[in-house]
Amino acid sequence: MRPAALIFDVFGTCVDWRRSIARAVAEVLPGLDAERFARDWRAEYEPAMDPIRAGRRGYVALDDLHRENLERVLARRGVSVPDTAALARAWERLDPWPDVVPGLAALKAQAIIAPCSNGSIALMTRLARYAGLPWDCILGAEIARDYKPRAVVYQSSCAALRLDPAEVMMVAAHNDDLHAARAAGLQTGFVPRPGEYGRDQTKDLGPDADWDVVATDFRDLAQHLATP
Amino acid sequence: MRPAALIFDVFGTCVDWRRSIARAVAEVLPGLDAERFARDWRAEYEPAMDPIRAGRRGYVALDDLHRENLERVLARRGVSVPDTAALARAWERLDPWPDVVPGLAALKAQAIIAPCSNGSIALMTRLARYAGLPWDCILGAEIARDYKPRAVVYQSSCAALRLDPAEVMMVAAHNDDLHAARAAGLQTGFVPRPGEYGRDQTKDLGPDADWDVVATDFRDLAQHLATP
Repeated sequence: MRPAALIFDVFGTCVDWRRSIARAVAEVLPGLDAERFARDWRAEYEPAMDPIRAGRRGYVALDDLHRENLERVLARRGVSVPDTAALARAWERLDPWPDVVPGLAALKAQAIIAPCSNGSIALMTRLARYAGLPWDCILGAEIARDYKPRAVVYQSSCAALRLDPAEVMMVAAHNDDLHAARAAGLQTGFVPRPGEYGRDQTKDLGPDADWDVVATDFRDLAQHLATP
Repeated sequence: MRPAALIFDVFGTCVDWRRSIARAVAEVLPGLDAERFARDWRAEYEPAMDPIRAGRRGYVALDDLHRENLERVLARRGVSVPDTAALARAWERLDPWPDVVPGLAALKAQAIIAPCSNGSIALMTRLARYAGLPWDCILGAEIARDYKPRAVVYQSSCAALRLDPAEVMMVAAHNDDLHAARAAGLQTGFVPRPGEYGRDQTKDLGPDADWDVVATDFRDLAQHLATP
């Protein structure tokens, strides 16, 4: 069945957070290994959501978690920046991979397209304006007030479109995201992003299951879906 | 203060529901006064939301209310259509007023733009695709799980953008909508739509208060905001 909507992971799948965050870090913390700082900041991402997924903490938007995580990484290094809120907003200015904007335009001609990210509506809206991502609407964590890979996030995104999960395809560069989406009843599309973590990336270099579509990039995904 | 975001009423303000619905009605109910039917259907709109606003009924998406209202209007006339669900989806295919698409493009260059309608995310998403409305995200009733003019709808839309209500302008062709938005702390912009109800329209032909901006149409609104 051709999907009526495609929902996308964003950090890593649509945008190159590593180099974009490193650039922002380098501006306010010169003389430091900005790319390592970016990766350390990102490493706080999953643990920060765990208490919320487990129900030990109420829903807190990723914007706030990004800032808390930044403060933790800064403290660990014993460095500071003039304005942590301003640096945390670097997550609103991430560059898309080169195929993403033309690929999304081609996909939008075929189906509804929306992010299904752990980023908030505010964060995804500002990032879309910065990166030129032509979403039809913003779905994901904030709709569900929970975080991926919890099934409710995928299912709430489908419900917000009044579609059955089987009518929706989750697109991600991360196998774990697709395993969770499949378990929630969605179709799955894998696009590798071997540059996400840089030269020493070992994870998610290829599909680890029989995803419904495996494409080389978003343009290729659009072609797959146009000629099933 | 220049608004960081503009949020819009949709039915009547952005799109001509009367003629678009009449066209859809005429297709499945030939020989009937389709425009009167459209107005009768629309007249059920406010009363259908009242029990939800009053807390006597849980949140039900406007898509479902539109269908219930349609069934009521059909029953009252003693007529039927092959598929009420299909006709109710006519609210996803409403033509924009001629200034809306170019006006929104000009406004989007200046601020975040989003609907703050009583329509659901699904309805607003499909309508935007049909009418070419270039929203940055979809806000409004479903975010709040309540209906305008309840303050929570305007305030939840601002909160979803992580903006203070004073940083956001509500744009509408209906004075009542702007009174409620102002009471909730938002800036206000009025654009008259004297064609909304046809030749015998008596309401909302002009502003009935000192709204922050009064513009002739969306292009004019963009000029007002660009040159404060």
